[in-house]
Amino acid sequence: MNLASDVVNARLYPAGMLTSLSRSEVERLHDASHGDLYELLRRCSLAVLNSGNESDDAEALLAEFRDFDITVEQFNRGIRLELCNAPGIAFVDGKIIEGVRELLSAVIRDLVYYDTEIGSNPSYTMDTGEQITNAVFEILRNANIIQPRVEPHLVVCWGGHSISRAEYEYTKLVGYELGLRKLNVCTGCGPGAMKGPMKGATIGHSKQRVKNGRYIGVTEPGIIAAESPNPIVNELVILPDIEKRLEAFVRLGHGIVVFPGGAGTAEEILYLLGILLHPKNADLPFPVVFTGPAGSAAYFEQIDKFIRLTLGDQAAARYQIIIDDPVAVAQTMQAGLAEVGEFRSEVKDAWYYNWRLQIDEDFQRPFEPTHAAMAGLELHRDLPVHELAANLRRAFSGIVAGNVKPNTLAAIRAGGKFEISGEKAIMDKLDGLLSEFVAQHRMKLPGVAYEPCYRVVSGE
Amino acid sequence: MNLASDVVNARLYPAGMLTSLSRSEVERLHDASHGDLYELLRRCSLAVLNSGNESDDAEALLAEFRDFDITVEQFNRGIRLELCNAPGIAFVDGKIIEGVRELLSAVIRDLVYYDTEIGSNPSYTMDTGEQITNAVFEILRNANIIQPRVEPHLVVCWGGHSISRAEYEYTKLVGYELGLRKLNVCTGCGPGAMKGPMKGATIGHSKQRVKNGRYIGVTEPGIIAAESPNPIVNELVILPDIEKRLEAFVRLGHGIVVFPGGAGTAEEILYLLGILLHPKNADLPFPVVFTGPAGSAAYFEQIDKFIRLTLGDQAAARYQIIIDDPVAVAQTMQAGLAEVGEFRSEVKDAWYYNWRLQIDEDFQRPFEPTHAAMAGLELHRDLPVHELAANLRRAFSGIVAGNVKPNTLAAIRAGGKFEISGEKAIMDKLDGLLSEFVAQHRMKLPGVAYEPCYRVVSGE
Amino acid sequence: MNLASDVVNARLYPAGMLTSLSRSEVERLHDASHGDLYELLRRCSLAVLNSGNESDDAEALLAEFRDFDITVEQFNRGIRLELCNAPGIAFVDGKIIEGVRELLSAVIRDLVYYDTEIGSNPSYTMDTGEQITNAVFEILRNANIIQPRVEPHLVVCWGGHSISRAEYEYTKLVGYELGLRKLNVCTGCGPGAMKGPMKGATIGHSKQRVKNGRYIGVTEPGIIAAESPNPIVNELVILPDIEKRLEAFVRLGHGIVVFPGGAGTAEEILYLLGILLHPKNADLPFPVVFTGPAGSAAYFEQIDKFIRLTLGDQAAARYQIIIDDPVAVAQTMQAGLAEVGEFRSEVKDAWYYNWRLQIDEDFQRPFEPTHAAMAGLELHRDLPVHELAANLRRAFSGIVAGNVKPNTLAAIRAGGKFEISGEKAIMDKLDGLLSEFVAQHRMKLPGVAYEPCYRVVSGE
Amino acid sequence: MNLASDVVNARLYPAGMLTSLSRSEVERLHDASHGDLYELLRRCSLAVLNSGNESDDAEALLAEFRDFDITVEQFNRGIRLELCNAPGIAFVDGKIIEGVRELLSAVIRDLVYYDTEIGSNPSYTMDTGEQITNAVFEILRNANIIQPRVEPHLVVCWGGHSISRAEYEYTKLVGYELGLRKLNVCTGCGPGAMKGPMKGATIGHSKQRVKNGRYIGVTEPGIIAAESPNPIVNELVILPDIEKRLEAFVRLGHGIVVFPGGAGTAEEILYLLGILLHPKNADLPFPVVFTGPAGSAAYFEQIDKFIRLTLGDQAAARYQIIIDDPVAVAQTMQAGLAEVGEFRSEVKDAWYYNWRLQIDEDFQRPFEPTHAAMAGLELHRDLPVHELAANLRRAFSGIVAGNVKPNTLAAIRAGGKFEISGEKAIMDKLDGLLSEFVAQHRMKLPGVAYEPCYRVVSGE
Repeated sequence: MNLASDVVNARLYPAGMLTSLSRSEVERLHDASHGDLYELLRRCSLAVLNSGNESDDAEALLAEFRDFDITVEQFNRGIRLELCNAPGIAFVDGKIIEGVRELLSAVIRDLVYYDTEIGSNPSYTMDTGEQITNAVFEILRNANIIQPRVEPHLVVCWGGHSISRAEYEYTKLVGYELGLRKLNVCTGCGPGAMKGPMKGATIGHSKQRVKNGRYIGVTEPGIIAAESPNPIVNELVILPDIEKRLEAFVRLGHGIVVFPGGAGTAEEILYLLGILLHPKNADLPFPVVFTGPAGSAAYFEQIDKFIRLTLGDQAAARYQIIIDDPVAVAQTMQAGLAEVGEFRSEVKDAWYYNWRLQIDEDFQRPFEPTHAAMAGLELHRDLPVHELAANLRRAFSGIVAGNVKPNTLAAIRAGGKFEISGEKAIMDKLDGLLSEFVAQHRMKLPGVAYEPCYRVVSGE
Repeated sequence: MNLASDVVNARLYPAGMLTSLSRSEVERLHDASHGDLYELLRRCSLAVLNSGNESDDAEALLAEFRDFDITVEQFNRGIRLELCNAPGIAFVDGKIIEGVRELLSAVIRDLVYYDTEIGSNPSYTMDTGEQITNAVFEILRNANIIQPRVEPHLVVCWGGHSISRAEYEYTKLVGYELGLRKLNVCTGCGPGAMKGPMKGATIGHSKQRVKNGRYIGVTEPGIIAAESPNPIVNELVILPDIEKRLEAFVRLGHGIVVFPGGAGTAEEILYLLGILLHPKNADLPFPVVFTGPAGSAAYFEQIDKFIRLTLGDQAAARYQIIIDDPVAVAQTMQAGLAEVGEFRSEVKDAWYYNWRLQIDEDFQRPFEPTHAAMAGLELHRDLPVHELAANLRRAFSGIVAGNVKPNTLAAIRAGGKFEISGEKAIMDKLDGLLSEFVAQHRMKLPGVAYEPCYRVVSGE
Repeated sequence: MNLASDVVNARLYPAGMLTSLSRSEVERLHDASHGDLYELLRRCSLAVLNSGNESDDAEALLAEFRDFDITVEQFNRGIRLELCNAPGIAFVDGKIIEGVRELLSAVIRDLVYYDTEIGSNPSYTMDTGEQITNAVFEILRNANIIQPRVEPHLVVCWGGHSISRAEYEYTKLVGYELGLRKLNVCTGCGPGAMKGPMKGATIGHSKQRVKNGRYIGVTEPGIIAAESPNPIVNELVILPDIEKRLEAFVRLGHGIVVFPGGAGTAEEILYLLGILLHPKNADLPFPVVFTGPAGSAAYFEQIDKFIRLTLGDQAAARYQIIIDDPVAVAQTMQAGLAEVGEFRSEVKDAWYYNWRLQIDEDFQRPFEPTHAAMAGLELHRDLPVHELAANLRRAFSGIVAGNVKPNTLAAIRAGGKFEISGEKAIMDKLDGLLSEFVAQHRMKLPGVAYEPCYRVVSGE
Repeated sequence: MNLASDVVNARLYPAGMLTSLSRSEVERLHDASHGDLYELLRRCSLAVLNSGNESDDAEALLAEFRDFDITVEQFNRGIRLELCNAPGIAFVDGKIIEGVRELLSAVIRDLVYYDTEIGSNPSYTMDTGEQITNAVFEILRNANIIQPRVEPHLVVCWGGHSISRAEYEYTKLVGYELGLRKLNVCTGCGPGAMKGPMKGATIGHSKQRVKNGRYIGVTEPGIIAAESPNPIVNELVILPDIEKRLEAFVRLGHGIVVFPGGAGTAEEILYLLGILLHPKNADLPFPVVFTGPAGSAAYFEQIDKFIRLTLGDQAAARYQIIIDDPVAVAQTMQAGLAEVGEFRSEVKDAWYYNWRLQIDEDFQRPFEPTHAAMAGLELHRDLPVHELAANLRRAFSGIVAGNVKPNTLAAIRAGGKFEISGEKAIMDKLDGLLSEFVAQHRMKLPGVAYEPCYRVVSGE
């Protein structure tokens, strides 16, 4: 069967805002794409061209298409992309699939926008949390994700990329019920729990004749290759790092559904609760539901216990656990979003970006998961609850990086496993949780034996 | 899990053309729906409300919802539908799903349109084939299926509603490749090979950012309950009988893909070849592809042999068999449609309706499959090939009716199996073919033991 | 200056519903256009091709383009129009102006639709008033004028085609204020008071960024040549006679503004009041405003006196006279339309057609203004008020016909002036009113000496 | 007659890109609007609110609405404008007209965009001509004027704001013929020759059913009050100074039509010819037509003679003079635009911005018309032709400023008339030309006695 030829060479023009560049933008873009940015651009482009392929092995992907090359050529009228040895899956009869062309354009837009307009702009500082929040907003707006005057409609779905068939089918059912209620879906844009809800929502939208359903993928350069955008994503944005990506999720989304997942999902949960526990956010409505099929009930019990132990019952009050009931999940979200809408109208806040949500700089500053940084994380209950949440978030963030991010993988190969230590009660629970993740194949897609990148060392 | 409540009572306003009725139309519609048309309307409405449910057992459906009632109430401003004990699957939080509302409106539109404007209009005769062709056109146009000035884009997909998982997945792949090439899909609108291509095309369209993909369902009152429109259908039309439905397929579609199927698919193939063999159609381009996954190769070999035996090699020259290659199928269709487009432009024929296709009245006149009629079919090779094709088509048509149409089912319960007789060579092949269909569960969805409704009796 | 060449030969394809005709419709249309309908079609087409030309002299137009010819040619794929010696004003560089193409298509659609679907359909009777009302509705719907689910928004503007510059400028100001309030305009579609409000509304709509402003022209075959659709009309419908045209106005429009005019305007006013005086219409909200610039105050005083004398003060209670205040006119309409909307919602009547309005058959039956019929009109106050209104309406109708309709013009040339007689008080007022119309050039565009087509003869 | 109340207080939310501002943008905007920018913002807003008013007396306008105030208030969700004592003409029943709201938003957008993003951005230099060209592009793109992938369609119309009735009617006819050919219009956005072509094009577009006609107004802060955007403008952009405004015209427009005008029109002609005479632009297609009604033939003869005398016959080869023939003007433009389209396609240049056009810095650098600068202009034929064109352009630019720009008016009141001197032959012609402008009321709208702001002093 010839589904598509193996590799393709092609020239194409980008879409969206890249169709009306100034001469100097074209030059900066061309230069950047041949300089420092080249490797990043190549890797992210490859991920997008490979959209629809379900592997999570970024290194294997890079190896398979080691001859892939992309160059941004300058034309008087703008830019042209030259692709060499690109994955055939992105083409139909030699012509690039329109959706892939859009995603590819998004990659170029975001990488270059950040590099030229924010990263290297001397008048653009990010010294304060407020400035970071602003940068996240501008990246989203530049990606056309900000839609003014639309009532709360966006449900962020978190969960693992490597989940069981039953769990995957369940995420589709939840997405379907969200779609039937004309809600839109935003995820990390990879496979598994990041794809299922979008797929389900597509069917729901189509039954309700919703023509402009939004399937927003929010990703970052370090993760995109391991979690290639699934083919349903019709709006893609790449934030420069995991912290800004998480901030984008919580300020953009009007409610959050969490499906079962591994370390990445745990990181997201701790990030979210750490923020919601801030006293300034106490009165802010923000619907959060943890959900899965009947077989996943135990999973959420464990998570729930871990949260109650580390962050206390007040943290558990910010979410609802709903097992095996997609209709109830969707109804809960719908009700929650209505409340969010009313609240924002009352306090005159925008619907399109949660400006009011207080996020401490602890949660905004990039955490570089070196061996030293991981070993130095303070993890005991003497800390203020919000600080503990921040550190736990960092611990999980480091594990995710050690699992999938090329740089961190290399560091671990060189320097051995990360060590994580802290209060014994926490360490025990943490170790149990992580072991469960491994046992349930939540760390990597099945088929690959998972070799943990960390060791949990109990403190006294 | 509460996916939807069991039954729902609801009032709703119809969509589309039913929103601007004249007073006298409202009256006729109201009267008709309370009179002779009531049972038909009720049965077809139930089928549509049940869209998405995968059973093919019309009688079981009618039994399950025996308390279902629909009335068309008259309002000054138009009509309102009152549904009583309707299937909960059609509703979200008590509100009907928009797509179902549209399909339901289509049912009312087509049943009543035919009844009041054509069936009971004294100035509307259907004495000649030309008048029948005209009636089919007017029903399609009234259903908004006719789109002027659009180049050939519509691929009719035929095949069984009861096919294997592998075959079903294959129909999705073919639909996907059609969708990637921006082609649209028209089917008989039930499950199996009538759903898979639409589902695949949806993904293909979405990747190509085609917003107005067409998923046209063409059905008839006798079949709709057994083959409920799948939820993807966004344009539905009900033709009054199988002959007009088949004419709609071949005049509306620009090319035809045939997947494995049972007696219904065989009927469709014989109808199509019978027509294409007409000398006046000899030069008419009309791409036809028989296709299935590797495991279905034998199936098409049998069909091919049966056709060559009965209709000769010239008949086999009108189709191509492509096994296990969705890309080749889609490319063949695309090339064929381009040829159709050029031909129509040359001869100044419309793109939206194949007026030039010669269909003899033999193929247009309704065939009522009574015991006598079935027994009387002449099936031997002394007949002109086109007449033999017509009779074979009728034989299969009778078997389909005996399998699923409520009236015929009742007749067979009362009068015993149909008897089919004719030339021995043909009867042997026919018997073999039908036995294969039964063995491969192509007559009914698995889980129900199939009891043949016919007996093949060799002639001398 | 070469604004456009004099005459043009062209072939073109029609627009709208004429793009998807059935074969038999094409045949009927082709036949009709070569038979009895030919002269009518030719005359109406010429009027539309001449759209924008401001003469009201139908006979001069016919004379100037005596060589103009139109034929409806049959193509397999539909119809093609062949124009011979058509007015150059309808073309740009040899290509027909899109708007004119649409109007021309409307002419063919309406003339043929009425002739083939209603006029010559044996199953279509018009014996009762209800059936006439129904026919008017179907013609409007067929012309795509009926828009379901849109709140009351349509203001009918009546008034003379031959008015002073000051009056014309005033109608533009009123149209502008209506347009600023996002209201749409429907007129008889000729020059003068039928063009000004549309022109003003265009500017108002454009300032309010209303992209789909409606400028509906409602005309009839006998009048279209004398009152060529002005170029702003973007929806045109031709009703078969003046009575159906008037019914279309009052059932389609949600409110009516009357500007100064001549006999035609008087006819419209009497028609409207005759209907509104029906007891069944007593509670029906229907905003009616008579308005003009300061200089036209005397005109409306005369009209008002004539109405009070003939129909009584109760008739005068159904309209408001507003002099020299376009803002007040628009605000009054806006408030009135809101009331109409509420009323219709309450009684569940459609927004798009005033089904509830009671119109007696007296007002629906065509009145053929022969010498005998005109002489026989009973005009005295012994009659029930509603009957007197009907007869007065007929008197004015006859005068309009005698002024502009080719057939009636011929009859008068042959048989002398119409004689109108009745109660002396009425006759005196009538004579005064008509003399005023003549003195003020309200009967014909200036430049042509007006020769009255009637004589008023006082009764005892 | 109460067309509108005199002054209105209102609060409103801006449109367009101002609906999704970041917090820091809101702050900058709020601060700027209360600081240095306040007076500029107030003046430009007043001009826009007064759109449709035909006076060209900026000082009278400022005096009439001396109590007018506008403040940009900060809301969490964005900004809100508070208007105090605003011209009633901008409102309907207390609500701002949508088009005015858009123009007002454009004013805020452009003034603040330039001030915060370009003017005060340390990383944004404008040292080279290329950087200026880039800034003009970014301002236009930010104003959404840049439309990628649209073939050449934009005709810039230049000419006086104070022209005779016959000339004005003629500009409407030309606009009408352009609109009939689906071309769009860009002007300086005031009355007279800046309004007529837009008005005509509106009618042409409406006849051709063009729904998205573009009526682009390109202005600058110093001129906007004297030349209030006419109400048809649906895209407005304010460039920071006359040089950038002129660059915007010639890079945005695909062809230029010049109507009769005064000093401003002369400035535009000299700017355009000065650029087109650059050797690098020799092969660049750029259709230029000078046109007017029969009565204006003498005007263009004078201009033609002045150009031939000063810049030579080669300059005259770049334009065509067409008298009294709107159809020929439109056809010439249409043919010229087609050539521009082919050329750009060939050299791969953008359709939306004429990057290739070489503009020397002499034409880009702002000229501040002080007494000294005006007196110092070198005006003799020893200079390279391109330098002489630049200086002549400056001379006319100074006269325009002295006629209408508030600052320059004040300087002249204080320091007396400008003195212009140079080669006698040129001075004589110049004096003659200017005297003609004065005699023909081309310097100011009639009704105001024109007091020249300059004296022409012959050199030796």
